Amino acid sequence: MTNNQQRAEILVQALPYIQKYNGKIVCVKYGGNAMINEDLKVSVMRDIVLLSLVGVKVVLIHGGGPEITQMLSRIGKKSEFVGGLRVTDRETADVVQMVLSGKINKGLVNLLESIGGKSIGLCGMDGHLIQARPLKEELGYVGEIVQTNVQPILDVLRMGYIPVVSTVGCDMEGNTYNINADTAAARIAGELGAECMVTMTDIEGVLRDKDDPTTLIKVIRLSEIPELTQTGVLCGGMIPKVQCCVDAVERGVKKVFIIDGRVPHAALIELLTDEGIGTMICA
Amino acid sequence: MTNNQQRAEILVQALPYIQKYNGKIVCVKYGGNAMINEDLKVSVMRDIVLLSLVGVKVVLIHGGGPEITQMLSRIGKKSEFVGGLRVTDRETADVVQMVLSGKINKGLVNLLESIGGKSIGLCGMDGHLIQARPLKEELGYVGEIVQTNVQPILDVLRMGYIPVVSTVGCDMEGNTYNINADTAAARIAGELGAECMVTMTDIEGVLRDKDDPTTLIKVIRLSEIPELTQTGVLCGGMIPKVQCCVDAVERGVKKVFIIDGRVPHAALIELLTDEGIGTMICA
Amino acid sequence: MTNNQQRAEILVQALPYIQKYNGKIVCVKYGGNAMINEDLKVSVMRDIVLLSLVGVKVVLIHGGGPEITQMLSRIGKKSEFVGGLRVTDRETADVVQMVLSGKINKGLVNLLESIGGKSIGLCGMDGHLIQARPLKEELGYVGEIVQTNVQPILDVLRMGYIPVVSTVGCDMEGNTYNINADTAAARIAGELGAECMVTMTDIEGVLRDKDDPTTLIKVIRLSEIPELTQTGVLCGGMIPKVQCCVDAVERGVKKVFIIDGRVPHAALIELLTDEGIGTMICA
Amino acid sequence: MTNNQQRAEILVQALPYIQKYNGKIVCVKYGGNAMINEDLKVSVMRDIVLLSLVGVKVVLIHGGGPEITQMLSRIGKKSEFVGGLRVTDRETADVVQMVLSGKINKGLVNLLESIGGKSIGLCGMDGHLIQARPLKEELGYVGEIVQTNVQPILDVLRMGYIPVVSTVGCDMEGNTYNINADTAAARIAGELGAECMVTMTDIEGVLRDKDDPTTLIKVIRLSEIPELTQTGVLCGGMIPKVQCCVDAVERGVKKVFIIDGRVPHAALIELLTDEGIGTMICA
Amino acid sequence: MTNNQQRAEILVQALPYIQKYNGKIVCVKYGGNAMINEDLKVSVMRDIVLLSLVGVKVVLIHGGGPEITQMLSRIGKKSEFVGGLRVTDRETADVVQMVLSGKINKGLVNLLESIGGKSIGLCGMDGHLIQARPLKEELGYVGEIVQTNVQPILDVLRMGYIPVVSTVGCDMEGNTYNINADTAAARIAGELGAECMVTMTDIEGVLRDKDDPTTLIKVIRLSEIPELTQTGVLCGGMIPKVQCCVDAVERGVKKVFIIDGRVPHAALIELLTDEGIGTMICA
Amino acid sequence: MTNNQQRAEILVQALPYIQKYNGKIVCVKYGGNAMINEDLKVSVMRDIVLLSLVGVKVVLIHGGGPEITQMLSRIGKKSEFVGGLRVTDRETADVVQMVLSGKINKGLVNLLESIGGKSIGLCGMDGHLIQARPLKEELGYVGEIVQTNVQPILDVLRMGYIPVVSTVGCDMEGNTYNINADTAAARIAGELGAECMVTMTDIEGVLRDKDDPTTLIKVIRLSEIPELTQTGVLCGGMIPKVQCCVDAVERGVKKVFIIDGRVPHAALIELLTDEGIGTMICA
Repeated sequence: MTNNQQRAEILVQALPYIQKYNGKIVCVKYGGNAMINEDLKVSVMRDIVLLSLVGVKVVLIHGGGPEITQMLSRIGKKSEFVGGLRVTDRETADVVQMVLSGKINKGLVNLLESIGGKSIGLCGMDGHLIQARPLKEELGYVGEIVQTNVQPILDVLRMGYIPVVSTVGCDMEGNTYNINADTAAARIAGELGAECMVTMTDIEGVLRDKDDPTTLIKVIRLSEIPELTQTGVLCGGMIPKVQCCVDAVERGVKKVFIIDGRVPHAALIELLTDEGIGTMICA
Repeated sequence: MTNNQQRAEILVQALPYIQKYNGKIVCVKYGGNAMINEDLKVSVMRDIVLLSLVGVKVVLIHGGGPEITQMLSRIGKKSEFVGGLRVTDRETADVVQMVLSGKINKGLVNLLESIGGKSIGLCGMDGHLIQARPLKEELGYVGEIVQTNVQPILDVLRMGYIPVVSTVGCDMEGNTYNINADTAAARIAGELGAECMVTMTDIEGVLRDKDDPTTLIKVIRLSEIPELTQTGVLCGGMIPKVQCCVDAVERGVKKVFIIDGRVPHAALIELLTDEGIGTMICA
Repeated sequence: MTNNQQRAEILVQALPYIQKYNGKIVCVKYGGNAMINEDLKVSVMRDIVLLSLVGVKVVLIHGGGPEITQMLSRIGKKSEFVGGLRVTDRETADVVQMVLSGKINKGLVNLLESIGGKSIGLCGMDGHLIQARPLKEELGYVGEIVQTNVQPILDVLRMGYIPVVSTVGCDMEGNTYNINADTAAARIAGELGAECMVTMTDIEGVLRDKDDPTTLIKVIRLSEIPELTQTGVLCGGMIPKVQCCVDAVERGVKKVFIIDGRVPHAALIELLTDEGIGTMICA
Repeated sequence: MTNNQQRAEILVQALPYIQKYNGKIVCVKYGGNAMINEDLKVSVMRDIVLLSLVGVKVVLIHGGGPEITQMLSRIGKKSEFVGGLRVTDRETADVVQMVLSGKINKGLVNLLESIGGKSIGLCGMDGHLIQARPLKEELGYVGEIVQTNVQPILDVLRMGYIPVVSTVGCDMEGNTYNINADTAAARIAGELGAECMVTMTDIEGVLRDKDDPTTLIKVIRLSEIPELTQTGVLCGGMIPKVQCCVDAVERGVKKVFIIDGRVPHAALIELLTDEGIGTMICA
Repeated sequence: MTNNQQRAEILVQALPYIQKYNGKIVCVKYGGNAMINEDLKVSVMRDIVLLSLVGVKVVLIHGGGPEITQMLSRIGKKSEFVGGLRVTDRETADVVQMVLSGKINKGLVNLLESIGGKSIGLCGMDGHLIQARPLKEELGYVGEIVQTNVQPILDVLRMGYIPVVSTVGCDMEGNTYNINADTAAARIAGELGAECMVTMTDIEGVLRDKDDPTTLIKVIRLSEIPELTQTGVLCGGMIPKVQCCVDAVERGVKKVFIIDGRVPHAALIELLTDEGIGTMICA
Repeated sequence: MTNNQQRAEILVQALPYIQKYNGKIVCVKYGGNAMINEDLKVSVMRDIVLLSLVGVKVVLIHGGGPEITQMLSRIGKKSEFVGGLRVTDRETADVVQMVLSGKINKGLVNLLESIGGKSIGLCGMDGHLIQARPLKEELGYVGEIVQTNVQPILDVLRMGYIPVVSTVGCDMEGNTYNINADTAAARIAGELGAECMVTMTDIEGVLRDKDDPTTLIKVIRLSEIPELTQTGVLCGGMIPKVQCCVDAVERGVKKVFIIDGRVPHAALIELLTDEGIGTMICA
């Protein structure tokens, strides 16, 4: 067998997986550390263009990460924290909006287009798709979602573009809010009736022993969450992340995958091969 | 006659103008100082939503202005100048992109939506709508347009949204470029086959004597430009601005209006009343 | 502020009202004395073209009035009356049909077209949209509605025309009937699921004291009708007119306005300003 | 063979003719004496509904005839004549419009609907489809066509209705004109790119000897017209009628049939059998 | 009356019947002896093209008959029988498929096209429209229907073709099955929500006395079937045939006609005249 | 790197090739010995379903091969030969039609459907897509193409099915013809404006020395054909095969590939990898 025969063989083995997701909406939540490595980012975008070409309706929802902090420090902005959350004044909210919607969002769009994808970048202001209000008064422009309007995402998909969404929220007074990207992704995936949501993070998934990658839990059913929380398997930053996954499943998303964005082609492996490489949360 | 009868009478008098632009594409170039006054901005957005509701396909193309300079100074960036143009390094280009596509663009979208319009914000990266290359090597990421792809604008119009476009360009290597907004607006208006382009600026129009507002030239035909330049009527910053208008007309736009964005409802007055309030350039 | 700025300001103030009715069906019942004054008629047609251009789906339903009587007298036809209603023999019914569907209907269409509207004139025979039977045998071809088929109106709207409807009914035997225009308008508005119905008449609205225009009742809820009838506020010709409004509301029309067609632009004032100039009947 | 087998056999023999006209536009000009006999009228309408059901896009264009004269005499109107043409003052024009567009047009629509057809009645004012001006000043509102806009007819066809057209013209000042129906039919058929036009009249067709029905000329080519005129075969009222047919052919209609409307099912016989029953005029 | 007038008269008499079936789906089950006579076959295809041209959505479902037996004997295949049914081994199933889907099906398509129809031939494998499993193990590839997917038939109709369906079934392992054509037709007609099913056979219909054609039962209601079976009126091969008709009615087909395919134009007579020439089964 | 990462990597490497053929028509000519091996056939069908899922509009055109000969011998039919071509009498033509359109065509459809493709099988009779006449009188029903009508193929593609086409021709008299599959494929590919045609055969491609596979000619331009023929590189059965490829290129197909159908996934390797495994013929 020549090398190319093996390649062709591998393409053909992806057939049943392609058929499974063909014409379905898949939300990919992408952010944080998985976004830093430039090569990895290109690789993730290739995966998304490929998924889109084989007929999957991919919606890319992204967060921000270090670039926001970097920019805030660049302008000499000191942040106060209340209960672990950064107090977001007007100026900070503006920086969040600029970095998320102007730099990261359009940068991802540009990358997708350079690879040959067709893409349009949206944020919560476009078509007022994320309507928000203050989460707590003392936190300023940290927002919680009041309502989502996913019509602009559906419109952009219908016209054949890959929608890239940054999770900046807005209200009717023209204020903008910093919205937690995991929360927004879960909400949007639910409203879109997505077949699945893929959360790309920088851990292997949920580990029974967080120091031992061989203890990866492959599947978690909603009913198992309370026990996993009580026994401390779910702890720290993993708790809100899993909570968002639960939220998505409860809003009707069939499966949510927490996968390791540092693994090249993690999304493709999860969706188009027989290997589950992270943790799947389902009803 | 009651007050409201007069109002109704005025609405009805707009009828022939509404009929004239109904279903036609009108590009509004908005930027610079006309954008600073917050009340004026709301008023301009109201005009645009109104035009859109009476069946005009408005495309809002905006520049940046003082917010870019402000942000650059905020991060302590000193700019070099070559031949009067700011040398744009990678970091400066990033700031331009963030401020234009992230802050101003989405801010305008947010405003339009708050007033009840339906809007999506685009930049030159979305659908690779403005493809650019360096204007001069020594200027860094100051770009000139290689090609435009107005399909995303047409798609967004067809779906019933008001497209708001920031004129950041891109190339296939993932670089972004600062593009002169007047130049880009002229090019895009031409490609769209716009009925007219309205350039909102902060002067009354072209004045025969620049210190005397009563010497406003109401109509300039392409053939009169050379003489107006030779005699110095067109001079300074007005020359490139008028050149963009000429470019638009040569690309097929029927009429270009240079109007004073500081006058409340200037666009409405120009388009929906019998008064021409600025300078019209046509073939 | 120049004159045209005021005009533009007024256009913009109509924005929320335009947004409210955009894409909605509004039935305008027009007839009787409001139709006699030629200038007023032109003004009403302008209002309708304007409403149609700002995205309202206007359906104009008209009655006849003096022109029928005039024509009957012209041919020397004497009418008998039973219980206040004109006995309508075959020849009278023919005159009604000719005047309504041939003269008034097409005259209104012609006027709308001359102003720049697109219009098609229909009567109850087109697409058999008003199917009728004799109201009382002794009245001859005075009809009551058996069934309406509003599909032709919807088709004509969908093609972008303003439907003008004269309320002549028909049956399967080829007979034609004179149908009360208020009754027909209420029925049609209900079947169309109209947002509102505007009844243009030649009085100010419902007055508490019919000789004192300052006693206009601005809003009547269905529940208040019995009391208003008992106390004699509703009396004479107003009773059947209000009954038609009640009928429309009960068939699902949200609001019915009785307005004074002699006031220039009464419909525009009612729909596109903050002033309610007549009486509104609602659930 | 049973009777019904013969019937079925006859249906099947119509197959090639149905295939020939399927999806094509056929204009039927109907009027004058052929319209008087009530039974015959029903029979003609049946033919039209049948043609429409077998996929022919029939456009019925009608004239007026005796009913106009009758109505004029009923109101005691005396007509002056200039050069054989009735001087048409405003009042006469109104009567023409009422009788044509109100009585005859809607009566035909009603008949078509009663037989199970779907029909909408139009006149030259609807969508301003016949725009006219005075033919000669001294004739008043006798009009000649300036322009036709057949879009409303195409729209009505596309929605699945049989358009019935009365040939009353209009101008932008709101005047209405009496237009010769043969002339208008030829013009409209040409603009519609009709496959053929069928002119139903009350003679057998063009006869070589007008007193001998056996001398029917089956086919006349345009090139033969001059000779037929010189030799007096074409004379009197036949000259303008044939001229309209010539006009239609010159505007692109492939064939024009002059047939005897007094023969039951003349149109069906002409179009759906192997028998040509009148005179065909073609290029 | 000339001959052609009579023809036209007959066409017009078909009008109400055409209107009744216009736009409705009619399944014609055609097969067995009715298919042998070459002239009769052409006549049946003409009827189908005619029905299709007058707006009926005809679906032609056919069986096989003598050509299969002939081919089996030609290749020297001897068949075993179990309980009166032919044991169908792989080779026999292949012959059935070839003769039905390759010869008869495409032959009918060819005939329809030659007459001027537009047609596409389908079998149970196309779009997996008939999914089957073995009826009884000992019978080999004699199939019973597990599921039907009528989407390909609807798609082919929507594109304007007459679908011709041969009732060969398939399973997911790539096996093909011989399916009783009456059973399949009933099932498909039900799934399609057909207005009626016409079963063309080689008897007059259901006879009360099978030797006396004058005892034809014109209408059988479902409720009468048991008694007709008990009294032996329904017997032999008629029982399963009627059972299929009952099945179709129970699946929602309004009327099923058993008609004599040897009578020229039997289907047209049944559908487009006032004569019921066979037996109608309905609820 | 895990195994699945390699798989994902390989999927991604196919991206530019997928983008190249996305939305384009690709005709695959499949037949003869490449069709015999059952495993290979499944593998080819998998390739086609995969190509169809990644957005290529695949049209599968097949020939017959040994099954026809086998069936003819099974029925004891002896064939005469004239000039190397089999004389095709009516009975032989029937067998060809049955085997091609009934067995092989529907078998391929069944296989595609079992793998999860959507497919409809067509032959030259469906929509009269291959209209033919006798090639030479003495050869009987061996046909040459008179005209092709590719509309049914386009319709079937538009509805989302993979069209499978057997190259049996027909004429208006109802005769069927055996058409050379290579010839028909070239003609159809040309009419469809196919991006490329892939001819799957059972040789490595065109070899400079037919006994030495290492002498494969990778690219042949039209201009090189004469020399290759003169020098005997092209000889025997390769001459007509190459002639068909030339025909396709001259009819506008950009590239024709002659590839070895015995190599697993030959089509995928040719289209979706950087390896050209056969001979490419182009302008």
